[in-house]
Amino acid sequence: MIVAKLGGSMGTDLDRALADIASLVGEGTEVVVVHGGSKEVDRISSALGKPPRYVTSPSGFKSRYTDRETLEIYVMVVAGRVNKLVVERLQALGVNAVGLSGLDGRLLRGKRKGVIIAQEDGKKRVLRGDYGGTVEAVNAGLLRLLLGEGYTPVIAPLALGREGEPLNVDGDRVAAAVAAALGAEALVLLTDVSGLLSDPSDPSTLIPHIPAARAREHMERYARGRMKKKVHAAISALEGGVGRVVIADGRKEHPLRRALGGEGTVIRS
Amino acid sequence: MIVAKLGGSMGTDLDRALADIASLVGEGTEVVVVHGGSKEVDRISSALGKPPRYVTSPSGFKSRYTDRETLEIYVMVVAGRVNKLVVERLQALGVNAVGLSGLDGRLLRGKRKGVIIAQEDGKKRVLRGDYGGTVEAVNAGLLRLLLGEGYTPVIAPLALGREGEPLNVDGDRVAAAVAAALGAEALVLLTDVSGLLSDPSDPSTLIPHIPAARAREHMERYARGRMKKKVHAAISALEGGVGRVVIADGRKEHPLRRALGGEGTVIRS
Repeated sequence: MIVAKLGGSMGTDLDRALADIASLVGEGTEVVVVHGGSKEVDRISSALGKPPRYVTSPSGFKSRYTDRETLEIYVMVVAGRVNKLVVERLQALGVNAVGLSGLDGRLLRGKRKGVIIAQEDGKKRVLRGDYGGTVEAVNAGLLRLLLGEGYTPVIAPLALGREGEPLNVDGDRVAAAVAAALGAEALVLLTDVSGLLSDPSDPSTLIPHIPAARAREHMERYARGRMKKKVHAAISALEGGVGRVVIADGRKEHPLRRALGGEGTVIRS
Repeated sequence: MIVAKLGGSMGTDLDRALADIASLVGEGTEVVVVHGGSKEVDRISSALGKPPRYVTSPSGFKSRYTDRETLEIYVMVVAGRVNKLVVERLQALGVNAVGLSGLDGRLLRGKRKGVIIAQEDGKKRVLRGDYGGTVEAVNAGLLRLLLGEGYTPVIAPLALGREGEPLNVDGDRVAAAVAAALGAEALVLLTDVSGLLSDPSDPSTLIPHIPAARAREHMERYARGRMKKKVHAAISALEGGVGRVVIADGRKEHPLRRALGGEGTVIRS
Protein backbone atom coordinates (compact mmCIF):
# COMPACT_ATOMS: atom_id res chain seq x y z
CA MET A 1 0.00 0.00 0.00
CA ILE A 2 1.22 3.48 -0.79
CA VAL A 3 0.11 6.95 0.23
CA ALA A 4 0.54 9.68 -2.38
CA LYS A 5 0.41 13.37 -1.59
CA LEU A 6 -0.33 15.29 -4.79
CA GLY A 7 1.47 18.49 -5.74
CA GLY A 8 -0.25 21.84 -5.76
CA SER A 9 -0.89 22.29 -9.49
CA MET A 10 -4.36 21.59 -10.88
CA GLY A 11 -3.10 21.22 -14.46
CA THR A 12 -0.90 18.77 -16.35
CA ASP A 13 1.08 17.78 -13.26
CA LEU A 14 -2.08 16.62 -11.55
CA ASP A 15 -3.14 14.59 -14.58
CA ARG A 16 0.25 12.86 -14.72
CA ALA A 17 0.10 11.88 -11.07
CA LEU A 18 -3.48 10.65 -11.45
CA ALA A 19 -2.56 8.55 -14.50
CA ASP A 20 0.09 6.80 -12.40
CA ILE A 21 -2.38 6.24 -9.59
CA ALA A 22 -4.82 4.69 -12.07
CA SER A 23 -2.22 2.27 -13.41
CA LEU A 24 -1.02 1.34 -9.91
CA VAL A 25 -4.60 0.70 -8.77
CA GLY A 26 -5.18 -1.28 -11.97
CA GLU A 27 -2.26 -3.54 -10.98
CA GLY A 28 -3.80 -4.17 -7.59
CA THR A 29 -1.75 -1.75 -5.48
CA GLU A 30 -3.75 -0.06 -2.75
CA VAL A 31 -3.30 3.71 -2.98
CA VAL A 32 -4.54 6.40 -0.64
CA VAL A 33 -4.47 9.88 -2.14
CA VAL A 34 -4.03 13.10 -0.16
CA HIS A 35 -4.23 16.53 -1.76
CA GLY A 36 -3.75 20.14 -0.77
CA GLY A 37 -5.53 23.11 -2.20
CA SER A 38 -3.85 26.29 -1.05
CA LYS A 39 -3.67 27.91 -4.48
CA GLU A 40 -7.34 27.30 -5.14
CA VAL A 41 -8.25 28.58 -1.69
CA ASP A 42 -6.26 31.78 -2.39
CA ARG A 43 -7.92 32.23 -5.77
CA ILE A 44 -11.50 31.76 -4.58
CA SER A 45 -10.88 33.60 -1.34
CA SER A 46 -9.64 36.61 -3.34
CA ALA A 47 -12.62 36.37 -5.73
CA LEU A 48 -14.90 36.50 -2.67
CA GLY A 49 -13.16 39.67 -1.48
CA LYS A 50 -11.11 38.01 1.25
CA PRO A 51 -7.47 37.87 0.13
CA PRO A 52 -5.31 35.31 1.94
CA ARG A 53 -2.93 36.24 4.70
CA TYR A 54 0.26 34.29 5.21
CA VAL A 55 2.55 34.50 8.19
CA THR A 56 5.99 33.08 8.98
CA SER A 57 6.69 31.61 12.39
CA PRO A 58 9.92 32.39 14.29
CA SER A 59 11.15 28.86 13.39
CA GLY A 60 10.67 29.63 9.70
CA PHE A 61 7.41 27.80 8.84
CA LYS A 62 5.10 29.77 6.57
CA SER A 63 1.41 29.22 7.13
CA ARG A 64 -2.00 30.57 6.30
CA TYR A 65 -3.75 32.67 8.94
CA THR A 66 -7.17 31.02 9.05
CA ASP A 67 -9.81 33.17 10.72
CA ARG A 68 -13.43 31.94 10.82
CA GLU A 69 -14.35 33.44 7.45
CA THR A 70 -11.23 32.00 5.81
CA LEU A 71 -11.96 28.62 7.44
CA GLU A 72 -15.38 28.49 5.81
CA ILE A 73 -13.90 29.23 2.39
CA TYR A 74 -11.08 26.76 3.06
CA VAL A 75 -13.53 23.94 3.88
CA MET A 76 -15.64 24.68 0.82
CA VAL A 77 -12.68 24.78 -1.56
CA VAL A 78 -10.58 21.85 -0.34
CA ALA A 79 -13.49 19.49 0.37
CA GLY A 80 -15.82 20.67 -2.41
CA ARG A 81 -13.71 21.91 -5.26
CA VAL A 82 -10.25 20.32 -5.16
CA ASN A 83 -11.45 17.02 -3.68
CA LYS A 84 -14.28 16.55 -6.17
CA LEU A 85 -12.08 17.57 -9.08
CA VAL A 86 -9.59 14.84 -8.15
CA VAL A 87 -12.42 12.33 -7.64
CA GLU A 88 -13.99 13.26 -10.99
CA ARG A 89 -10.69 12.84 -12.85
CA LEU A 90 -9.90 9.52 -11.14
CA GLN A 91 -13.39 8.25 -11.97
CA ALA A 92 -12.76 9.18 -15.61
CA LEU A 93 -9.62 7.01 -15.43
CA GLY A 94 -11.64 4.07 -14.12
CA VAL A 95 -10.61 4.41 -10.47
CA ASN A 96 -13.51 4.16 -8.05
CA ALA A 97 -12.42 7.09 -5.90
CA VAL A 98 -14.23 8.18 -2.74
CA GLY A 99 -13.52 11.71 -1.55
CA LEU A 100 -13.36 12.31 2.18
CA SER A 101 -12.42 15.17 4.43
CA GLY A 102 -11.13 14.66 7.94
CA LEU A 103 -14.62 15.47 9.26
CA ASP A 104 -16.20 12.50 7.50
CA GLY A 105 -16.34 9.46 9.72
CA ARG A 106 -14.00 11.34 12.09
CA LEU A 107 -11.24 10.39 9.69
CA LEU A 108 -8.78 12.95 11.08
CA ARG A 109 -8.97 14.22 14.66
CA GLY A 110 -6.91 17.25 15.35
CA LYS A 111 -5.81 19.79 17.91
CA ARG A 112 -6.34 23.46 17.26
CA LYS A 113 -3.39 25.76 17.71
CA GLY A 114 -5.61 28.79 18.32
CA VAL A 115 -2.74 31.21 18.53
CA ILE A 116 -0.01 31.62 15.96
CA ILE A 117 3.19 33.54 16.41
CA ALA A 118 4.15 35.59 13.41
CA GLN A 119 7.61 36.95 12.81
CA GLU A 120 7.12 40.35 11.15
CA ASP A 121 9.80 42.97 10.60
CA GLY A 122 12.02 41.32 13.20
CA LYS A 123 9.25 41.38 15.82
CA LYS A 124 7.03 38.61 17.15
CA ARG A 125 3.29 39.15 16.90
CA VAL A 126 0.59 36.99 18.43
CA LEU A 127 -2.39 36.28 16.16
CA ARG A 128 -5.53 34.87 17.79
CA GLY A 129 -8.61 33.15 16.38
CA ASP A 130 -6.66 30.92 14.04
CA TYR A 131 -8.28 27.64 12.89
CA GLY A 132 -5.06 25.89 11.95
CA GLY A 133 -4.27 22.65 13.68
CA THR A 134 -2.28 19.45 13.81
CA VAL A 135 -3.49 15.88 13.23
CA GLU A 136 -3.61 13.72 16.35
CA ALA A 137 -5.48 10.59 15.25
CA VAL A 138 -6.54 8.84 12.06
CA ASN A 139 -9.57 6.55 11.66
CA ALA A 140 -7.67 3.87 9.77
CA GLY A 141 -10.70 1.55 10.00
CA LEU A 142 -12.72 3.70 7.61
CA LEU A 143 -9.87 3.74 5.07
CA ARG A 144 -9.41 -0.04 5.35
CA LEU A 145 -13.16 -0.56 4.96
CA LEU A 146 -13.14 1.36 1.67
CA LEU A 147 -9.85 -0.10 0.39
CA GLY A 148 -11.15 -3.60 1.14
CA GLU A 149 -14.08 -3.03 -1.20
CA GLY A 150 -11.92 -1.68 -4.00
CA TYR A 151 -12.48 2.04 -3.40
CA THR A 152 -9.61 4.53 -3.54
CA PRO A 153 -9.84 7.14 -0.76
CA VAL A 154 -9.03 10.74 -1.68
CA ILE A 155 -8.45 12.89 1.39
CA ALA A 156 -8.89 16.65 1.79
CA PRO A 157 -6.65 18.26 4.45
CA LEU A 158 -9.23 19.09 7.07
CA ALA A 159 -9.44 17.73 10.61
CA LEU A 160 -12.16 17.60 13.24
CA GLY A 161 -11.03 19.63 16.27
CA ARG A 162 -11.66 18.78 19.91
CA GLU A 163 -14.60 21.19 20.07
CA GLY A 164 -16.05 19.69 16.90
CA GLU A 165 -14.75 22.54 14.74
CA PRO A 166 -13.11 21.98 11.34
CA LEU A 167 -9.39 22.69 11.26
CA ASN A 168 -7.07 23.65 8.44
CA VAL A 169 -4.28 21.07 8.56
CA ASP A 170 -1.19 20.67 6.42
CA GLY A 171 -1.59 18.17 3.57
CA ASP A 172 1.92 16.75 3.90
CA ARG A 173 1.36 16.12 7.59
CA VAL A 174 -2.01 14.52 6.83
CA ALA A 175 -0.34 12.19 4.33
CA ALA A 176 2.32 11.30 6.91
CA ALA A 177 -0.27 10.57 9.62
CA VAL A 178 -2.39 8.47 7.24
CA ALA A 179 0.66 6.52 6.00
CA ALA A 180 1.72 5.80 9.58
CA ALA A 181 -1.79 4.77 10.66
CA LEU A 182 -2.07 2.35 7.75
CA GLY A 183 1.51 1.06 8.05
CA ALA A 184 2.10 2.04 4.41
CA GLU A 185 5.05 0.64 2.56
CA ALA A 186 5.84 4.03 1.02
CA LEU A 187 4.81 7.65 1.25
CA VAL A 188 5.41 9.84 -1.79
CA LEU A 189 5.30 13.61 -1.37
CA LEU A 190 5.11 15.25 -4.80
CA THR A 191 6.36 18.79 -5.17
CA ASP A 192 7.62 21.27 -7.76
CA VAL A 193 11.33 20.64 -7.32
CA SER A 194 13.29 17.43 -7.78
CA GLY A 195 13.64 16.71 -4.06
CA LEU A 196 15.68 18.14 -1.19
CA LEU A 197 18.50 20.24 -2.62
CA SER A 198 21.62 21.11 -0.67
CA ASP A 199 21.52 24.44 -2.51
CA PRO A 200 17.87 25.42 -3.20
CA SER A 201 18.96 27.60 -6.13
CA ASP A 202 20.85 24.76 -7.84
CA PRO A 203 18.79 21.78 -9.08
CA SER A 204 21.97 19.71 -9.56
CA THR A 205 22.47 19.53 -5.79
CA LEU A 206 19.74 16.95 -5.18
CA ILE A 207 20.32 14.81 -2.10
CA PRO A 208 19.28 11.34 -3.33
CA HIS A 209 19.32 9.40 -0.05
CA ILE A 210 19.02 10.35 3.57
CA PRO A 211 19.12 7.80 6.39
CA ALA A 212 16.16 8.36 8.72
CA ALA A 213 18.51 9.02 11.64
CA ARG A 214 20.00 12.00 9.80
CA ALA A 215 16.78 13.47 8.42
CA ARG A 216 16.36 16.10 11.13
CA GLU A 217 19.89 17.33 10.66
CA HIS A 218 19.31 17.58 6.88
CA MET A 219 16.05 19.44 7.45
CA GLU A 220 17.67 22.03 9.65
CA ARG A 221 20.62 22.44 7.37
CA TYR A 222 19.07 22.48 3.89
CA ALA A 223 15.28 22.77 3.94
CA ARG A 224 13.49 26.10 3.60
CA GLY A 225 9.80 27.04 3.44
CA ARG A 226 7.52 24.29 2.09
CA MET A 227 10.44 21.84 1.91
CA LYS A 228 10.92 22.16 5.64
CA LYS A 229 7.33 20.98 6.18
CA LYS A 230 7.87 18.08 3.81
CA VAL A 231 10.98 16.78 5.56
CA HIS A 232 9.24 17.27 8.88
CA ALA A 233 6.29 15.19 7.61
CA ALA A 234 8.70 12.55 6.32
CA ILE A 235 10.32 12.26 9.73
CA SER A 236 6.99 11.77 11.47
CA ALA A 237 5.93 9.13 8.91
CA LEU A 238 9.17 7.17 9.41
CA GLU A 239 8.82 7.44 13.20
CA GLY A 240 5.29 6.06 12.73
CA GLY A 241 6.60 2.96 10.96
CA VAL A 242 6.35 3.85 7.27
CA GLY A 243 8.91 1.95 5.18
CA ARG A 244 10.24 4.85 3.15
CA VAL A 245 9.38 8.39 2.17
CA VAL A 246 10.20 9.87 -1.23
CA ILE A 247 10.11 13.62 -1.82
CA ALA A 248 9.81 13.75 -5.58
CA ASP A 249 9.24 15.90 -8.63
CA GLY A 250 5.56 16.16 -9.56
CA ARG A 251 6.26 17.97 -12.83
CA LYS A 252 7.65 15.00 -14.78
CA GLU A 253 5.96 12.21 -16.72
CA HIS A 254 5.09 9.30 -14.40
CA PRO A 255 5.97 11.17 -11.23
CA LEU A 256 4.75 8.44 -8.89
CA ARG A 257 6.38 5.56 -10.76
CA ARG A 258 9.65 7.45 -10.82
CA ALA A 259 9.41 8.24 -7.13
CA LEU A 260 8.65 4.62 -6.25
CA GLY A 261 11.62 3.65 -8.42
CA GLY A 262 13.88 5.84 -6.32
CA GLU A 263 13.98 9.19 -8.16
CA GLY A 264 13.93 12.16 -5.83
CA THR A 265 15.06 12.26 -2.22
CA VAL A 266 14.53 8.88 -0.58
CA ILE A 267 14.45 8.92 3.21
CA ARG A 268 14.49 5.53 4.98
CA SER A 269 15.89 3.76 7.96
CA MET B 1 -34.32 2.38 7.69
CA ILE B 2 -35.42 5.85 6.72
CA VAL B 3 -34.22 8.39 4.19
CA ALA B 4 -34.58 12.05 5.19
CA LYS B 5 -34.35 14.91 2.72
CA LEU B 6 -33.55 18.09 4.64
CA GLY B 7 -35.28 21.40 3.97
CA GLY B 8 -33.46 24.32 2.39
CA SER B 9 -32.81 26.47 5.47
CA MET B 10 -29.35 26.45 7.03
CA GLY B 11 -30.60 27.86 10.36
CA THR B 12 -32.86 26.64 13.17
CA ASP B 13 -34.87 24.34 10.90
CA LEU B 14 -31.74 22.43 9.98
CA ASP B 15 -30.71 22.08 13.62
CA ARG B 16 -34.15 20.71 14.54
CA ALA B 17 -34.05 18.10 11.80
CA LEU B 18 -30.49 17.11 12.74
CA ALA B 19 -31.44 16.74 16.41
CA ASP B 20 -34.15 14.26 15.37
CA ILE B 21 -31.70 12.38 13.19
CA ALA B 22 -29.29 12.14 16.13
CA SER B 23 -31.95 10.72 18.43
CA LEU B 24 -33.18 8.26 15.79
CA VAL B 25 -29.62 7.07 15.12
CA GLY B 26 -29.08 6.84 18.90
CA GLU B 27 -32.06 4.45 19.08
CA GLY B 28 -30.56 2.25 16.39
CA THR B 29 -32.56 3.43 13.38
CA GLU B 30 -30.52 3.56 10.18
CA VAL B 31 -30.87 6.98 8.59
CA VAL B 32 -29.58 8.22 5.25
CA VAL B 33 -29.56 11.99 4.92
CA VAL B 34 -29.92 13.89 1.64
CA HIS B 35 -29.63 17.66 1.43
CA GLY B 36 -30.04 20.37 -1.17
CA GLY B 37 -28.16 23.64 -1.31
CA SER B 38 -29.79 25.93 -3.86
CA LYS B 39 -29.92 28.96 -1.62
CA GLU B 40 -26.25 28.67 -0.73
CA VAL B 41 -25.33 28.12 -4.37
CA ASP B 42 -27.23 31.31 -5.27
CA ARG B 43 -25.56 33.26 -2.50
CA ILE B 44 -21.98 32.21 -3.31
CA SER B 45 -22.57 32.31 -7.03
CA SER B 46 -23.71 35.92 -6.71
CA ALA B 47 -20.74 36.79 -4.47
CA LEU B 48 -18.47 35.40 -7.20
CA GLY B 49 -20.13 37.66 -9.77
CA LYS B 50 -22.24 34.95 -11.41
CA PRO B 51 -25.87 35.46 -10.39
CA PRO B 52 -28.11 32.38 -10.78
CA ARG B 53 -30.48 31.93 -13.66
CA TYR B 54 -33.71 30.04 -13.19
CA VAL B 55 -36.01 28.88 -15.94
CA THR B 56 -39.49 27.35 -15.99
CA SER B 57 -40.23 24.43 -18.29
CA PRO B 58 -43.44 24.30 -20.36
CA SER B 59 -44.75 21.67 -17.90
CA GLY B 60 -44.24 24.09 -15.01
CA PHE B 61 -41.05 22.79 -13.38
CA LYS B 62 -38.69 25.53 -12.28
CA SER B 63 -35.01 24.71 -12.50
CA ARG B 64 -31.54 26.21 -12.39
CA TYR B 65 -29.77 26.74 -15.69
CA THR B 66 -26.40 25.17 -14.97
CA ASP B 67 -23.71 26.19 -17.45
CA ARG B 68 -20.12 24.98 -16.91
CA GLU B 69 -19.14 27.88 -14.67
CA THR B 70 -22.30 27.47 -12.57
CA LEU B 71 -21.67 23.72 -12.37
CA GLU B 72 -18.25 24.30 -10.86
CA ILE B 73 -19.69 26.61 -8.23
CA TYR B 74 -22.58 24.19 -7.64
CA VAL B 75 -20.19 21.25 -7.01
CA MET B 76 -18.04 23.32 -4.66
CA VAL B 77 -20.99 24.61 -2.63
CA VAL B 78 -23.18 21.51 -2.33
CA ALA B 79 -20.32 19.04 -1.81
CA GLY B 80 -17.95 21.33 0.09
CA ARG B 81 -20.01 23.83 1.98
CA VAL B 82 -23.50 22.47 2.65
CA ASN B 83 -22.41 18.83 2.92
CA LYS B 84 -19.57 19.53 5.36
CA LEU B 85 -21.73 21.88 7.41
CA VAL B 86 -24.29 19.08 7.88
CA VAL B 87 -21.53 16.57 8.65
CA GLU B 88 -19.92 18.96 11.15
CA ARG B 89 -23.21 19.53 12.98
CA LEU B 90 -24.10 15.83 13.04
CA GLN B 91 -20.63 15.03 14.41
CA ALA B 92 -21.23 17.59 17.16
CA LEU B 93 -24.42 15.67 18.01
CA GLY B 94 -22.47 12.42 18.27
CA VAL B 95 -23.52 11.01 14.90
CA ASN B 96 -20.63 9.57 12.91
CA ALA B 97 -21.66 11.13 9.60
CA VAL B 98 -19.83 10.56 6.33
CA GLY B 99 -20.48 13.10 3.59
CA LEU B 100 -20.63 11.85 0.03
CA SER B 101 -21.52 13.32 -3.33
CA GLY B 102 -22.85 11.21 -6.18
CA LEU B 103 -19.34 11.24 -7.70
CA ASP B 104 -17.82 9.42 -4.73
CA GLY B 105 -17.77 5.68 -5.24
CA ARG B 106 -20.08 6.26 -8.23
CA LEU B 107 -22.84 6.65 -5.68
CA LEU B 108 -25.25 8.27 -8.14
CA ARG B 109 -25.05 7.68 -11.88
CA GLY B 110 -27.06 10.07 -13.97
CA LYS B 111 -28.08 11.12 -17.42
CA ARG B 112 -27.46 14.64 -18.60
CA LYS B 113 -30.35 16.52 -20.11
CA GLY B 114 -28.04 18.82 -22.09
CA VAL B 115 -30.83 20.92 -23.43
CA ILE B 116 -33.54 22.59 -21.41
CA ILE B 117 -36.69 24.15 -22.74
CA ALA B 118 -37.57 27.41 -21.07
CA GLN B 119 -41.01 28.97 -21.21
CA GLU B 120 -40.40 32.73 -21.34
CA ASP B 121 -43.01 35.38 -22.14
CA GLY B 122 -45.28 32.77 -23.68
CA LYS B 123 -42.52 31.50 -25.97
CA LYS B 124 -40.41 28.36 -25.81
CA ARG B 125 -36.65 28.84 -25.81
CA VAL B 126 -34.02 26.14 -26.12
CA LEU B 127 -31.05 26.52 -23.75
CA ARG B 128 -27.97 24.42 -24.49
CA GLY B 129 -24.93 23.51 -22.42
CA ASP B 130 -26.93 22.70 -19.31
CA TYR B 131 -25.39 20.35 -16.73
CA GLY B 132 -28.65 19.33 -15.11
CA GLY B 133 -29.53 15.66 -15.09
CA THR B 134 -31.60 12.85 -13.67
CA VAL B 135 -30.49 9.96 -11.46
CA GLU B 136 -30.44 6.58 -13.17
CA ALA B 137 -28.64 4.31 -10.70
CA VAL B 138 -27.60 4.25 -7.05
CA ASN B 139 -24.61 2.35 -5.60
CA ALA B 140 -26.59 0.96 -2.67
CA GLY B 141 -23.61 -1.26 -1.75
CA LEU B 142 -21.52 1.71 -0.65
CA LEU B 143 -24.36 3.04 1.54
CA ARG B 144 -24.91 -0.42 3.10
CA LEU B 145 -21.17 -0.78 3.71
CA LEU B 146 -21.12 2.48 5.68
CA LEU B 147 -24.44 1.89 7.49
CA GLY B 148 -23.23 -1.59 8.49
CA GLU B 149 -20.27 -0.04 10.31
CA GLY B 150 -22.37 2.54 12.11
CA TYR B 151 -21.74 5.51 9.82
CA THR B 152 -24.55 7.84 8.73
CA PRO B 153 -24.26 8.80 5.04
CA VAL B 154 -24.98 12.42 4.14
CA ILE B 155 -25.53 12.86 0.41
CA ALA B 156 -25.01 15.98 -1.73
CA PRO B 157 -27.21 16.17 -4.87
CA LEU B 158 -24.62 15.58 -7.55
CA ALA B 159 -24.48 12.69 -10.01
CA LEU B 160 -21.77 11.25 -12.25
CA GLY B 161 -22.87 11.61 -15.87
CA ARG B 162 -22.26 9.13 -18.67
CA GLU B 163 -19.27 11.12 -19.92
CA GLY B 164 -17.84 11.27 -16.42
CA GLU B 165 -19.05 14.83 -15.89
CA PRO B 166 -20.70 15.99 -12.65
CA LEU B 167 -24.40 16.75 -12.94
CA ASN B 168 -26.68 19.00 -10.92
CA VAL B 169 -29.53 16.74 -9.82
CA ASP B 170 -32.62 17.47 -7.77
CA GLY B 171 -32.26 16.63 -4.07
CA ASP B 172 -35.81 15.30 -3.71
CA ARG B 173 -35.29 12.97 -6.66
CA VAL B 174 -31.95 11.84 -5.20
CA ALA B 175 -33.67 11.04 -1.91
CA ALA B 176 -36.37 9.08 -3.77
CA ALA B 177 -33.81 7.09 -5.78
CA VAL B 178 -31.74 6.32 -2.68
CA ALA B 179 -34.82 5.28 -0.68
CA ALA B 180 -35.92 2.96 -3.50
CA ALA B 181 -32.43 1.46 -3.94
CA LEU B 182 -32.21 0.70 -0.21
CA GLY B 183 -35.80 -0.47 0.12
CA ALA B 184 -36.35 2.13 2.84
CA GLU B 185 -39.34 1.85 5.12
CA ALA B 186 -40.03 5.57 4.84
CA LEU B 187 -38.89 8.63 2.92
CA VAL B 188 -39.44 12.01 4.54
CA LEU B 189 -39.23 15.14 2.39
CA LEU B 190 -38.99 18.19 4.63
CA THR B 191 -40.16 21.52 3.26
CA ASP B 192 -41.33 24.97 4.36
CA VAL B 193 -45.06 24.26 4.23
CA SER B 194 -47.11 21.73 6.16
CA GLY B 195 -47.50 19.32 3.22
CA LEU B 196 -49.50 19.26 0.01
CA LEU B 197 -52.27 21.86 0.25
CA SER B 198 -55.38 21.77 -1.92
CA ASP B 199 -55.19 25.57 -1.88
CA PRO B 200 -51.51 26.66 -1.72
CA SER B 201 -52.52 29.99 -0.17
CA ASP B 202 -54.50 28.37 2.68
CA PRO B 203 -52.49 26.28 5.21
CA SER B 204 -55.70 24.76 6.58
CA THR B 205 -56.25 22.84 3.35
CA LEU B 206 -53.55 20.20 4.05
CA ILE B 207 -54.25 16.88 2.36
CA PRO B 208 -53.27 14.39 5.10
CA HIS B 209 -53.38 11.13 3.15
CA ILE B 210 -53.08 10.23 -0.50
CA PRO B 211 -53.25 6.64 -1.76
CA ALA B 212 -50.29 5.97 -4.06
CA ALA B 213 -52.63 5.23 -6.95
CA ARG B 214 -54.05 8.73 -6.77
CA ALA B 215 -50.78 10.62 -6.25
CA ARG B 216 -50.29 11.64 -9.87
CA GLU B 217 -53.81 13.04 -10.06
CA HIS B 218 -53.18 15.02 -6.87
CA MET B 219 -49.89 16.31 -8.21
CA GLU B 220 -51.44 17.60 -11.41
CA ARG B 221 -54.38 19.11 -9.60
CA TYR B 222 -52.82 20.75 -6.56
CA ALA B 223 -49.02 20.88 -6.72
CA ARG B 224 -47.14 23.94 -7.96
CA GLY B 225 -43.44 24.74 -8.25
CA ARG B 226 -41.22 22.93 -5.73
CA MET B 227 -44.18 20.93 -4.45
CA LYS B 228 -44.70 19.44 -7.89
CA LYS B 229 -41.14 18.06 -7.76
CA LYS B 230 -41.73 16.65 -4.30
CA VAL B 231 -44.88 14.75 -5.25
CA HIS B 232 -43.13 13.57 -8.39
CA ALA B 233 -40.25 12.27 -6.27
CA ALA B 234 -42.72 10.62 -3.88
CA ILE B 235 -44.36 8.77 -6.78
CA SER B 236 -41.06 7.42 -8.04
CA ALA B 237 -40.04 6.31 -4.53
CA LEU B 238 -43.32 4.43 -4.06
CA GLU B 239 -42.99 2.85 -7.50
CA GLY B 240 -39.50 1.77 -6.42
CA GLY B 241 -40.87 -0.07 -3.39
CA VAL B 242 -40.58 2.47 -0.55
CA GLY B 243 -43.18 1.85 2.15
CA ARG B 244 -44.41 5.39 2.55
CA VAL B 245 -43.46 8.95 1.74
CA VAL B 246 -44.23 11.89 4.00
CA ILE B 247 -44.04 15.47 2.75
CA ALA B 248 -43.72 17.36 5.99
CA ASP B 249 -43.09 20.70 7.65
CA GLY B 250 -39.41 21.29 8.37
CA ARG B 251 -40.06 24.44 10.39
CA LYS B 252 -41.49 22.80 13.52
CA GLU B 253 -39.86 21.22 16.55
CA HIS B 254 -39.08 17.54 15.91
CA PRO B 255 -39.91 17.69 12.22
CA LEU B 256 -38.78 14.14 11.47
CA ARG B 257 -40.47 12.56 14.48
CA ARG B 258 -43.71 14.32 13.60
CA ALA B 259 -43.47 13.24 9.98
CA LEU B 260 -42.80 9.62 10.94
CA GLY B 261 -45.79 9.87 13.29
CA GLY B 262 -48.00 10.84 10.37
CA GLU B 263 -47.99 14.67 10.40
CA GLY B 264 -47.89 16.18 6.94
CA THR B 265 -49.04 14.58 3.70
CA VAL B 266 -48.60 10.81 3.87
CA ILE B 267 -48.55 9.03 0.53
CA ARG B 268 -48.67 5.23 0.57
CA SER B 269 -50.14 2.28 -1.20
